[in-house]
Amino acid sequence: MDHLLNQIEFIREIDKLKYIFRKTKLINSDRPENDAEHSWHLAMMAFVLAGHANEPIDLEKVMKMVLIHDIVEIDSGDVFAYDTTKSHDNFDEELKAARRIFGILPEEQAEEFINLWIEFEEMKTPESKFARSLDRLEPLLQNASNNGGTWREFDVKYDKVIEKKKAIKDGSEELWKFAENLIDESVEKGILSSPLTP
Amino acid sequence: MDHLLNQIEFIREIDKLKYIFRKTKLINSDRPENDAEHSWHLAMMAFVLAGHANEPIDLEKVMKMVLIHDIVEIDSGDVFAYDTTKSHDNFDEELKAARRIFGILPEEQAEEFINLWIEFEEMKTPESKFARSLDRLEPLLQNASNNGGTWREFDVKYDKVIEKKKAIKDGSEELWKFAENLIDESVEKGILSSPLTP
Repeated sequence: MDHLLNQIEFIREIDKLKYIFRKTKLINSDRPENDAEHSWHLAMMAFVLAGHANEPIDLEKVMKMVLIHDIVEIDSGDVFAYDTTKSHDNFDEELKAARRIFGILPEEQAEEFINLWIEFEEMKTPESKFARSLDRLEPLLQNASNNGGTWREFDVKYDKVIEKKKAIKDGSEELWKFAENLIDESVEKGILSSPLTP
Repeated sequence: MDHLLNQIEFIREIDKLKYIFRKTKLINSDRPENDAEHSWHLAMMAFVLAGHANEPIDLEKVMKMVLIHDIVEIDSGDVFAYDTTKSHDNFDEELKAARRIFGILPEEQAEEFINLWIEFEEMKTPESKFARSLDRLEPLLQNASNNGGTWREFDVKYDKVIEKKKAIKDGSEELWKFAENLIDESVEKGILSSPLTP
């Protein structure tokens, strides 16, 4: 019963993820997406797109990974992918958050969750590479549907987008081919500044 | 590539789940929860609480089930658990929605998703019983933290709550014991009207 009470406390704590807003907006919308919605969408993408992973993956593990990957932001906040004023190397701060929040769980489970989060961050296993592909693909779908979305809002150019998105390739060549097409189409439509744009 | 384009269309379509609002509010909040956030929270609960299921369960299947269980509401809308003016037997309407929305996917996958949704609705397998327990438990945690929440807002009494929540027992005796305690505590605190309340 002690274990259950700790688990329930954790389940209550993570409700806070619904208040952490990202910069990216919902599809065809100007309403920012929150981290809980984002995590649900990635888990659905894992379920639907699993067949496109470069290597054989344990789908249950990918789903768990994307469900928990942003929980640390309850303490450390969301860092916008193209924010040049902030350090993206806030691993220590996020690890501290992981230890506090996952640490609410019973000991064995806490360890499992922290390790799963570290595995996602390190991007070395087939599962974490594929999870990262999905995490990079979702905002691309959103920006392409929102007339450029955060690309135009924050003046992000083609090169920066390619640099950020190429991690998709490590998890899925097929999704990367799709993503490259979508980026090229966005340049053609004039919603993303091309390298040739003055 | 055709398959992938259908899958991406589905992933775009289900973004609409983020606009379907439930009656229940977030924990310690008066902001209604949307179906995407709710589905994320249930998938997390499945991950954390799997050890409390009455029977051995396939966790991946439970997670998939709760991730997709409300997608039909994009077409059919949310029906409040204690709404006495609306029929809760809108299975035909929801099946039509399941066929349209999951039908966007490639054929084999569409069939898998529709069958998974039907399995959840029928509540006959260990996975669907446990998924239902989680679906009943989450709003209980919310109402208990919100000074009675929708119980007080819609004048829902103890008997109705027990009637609705007892499905938790079919999936998990342990979670049911916890839920019963929480309901009793809510009566003691005066945030839920007891059978003896005039």
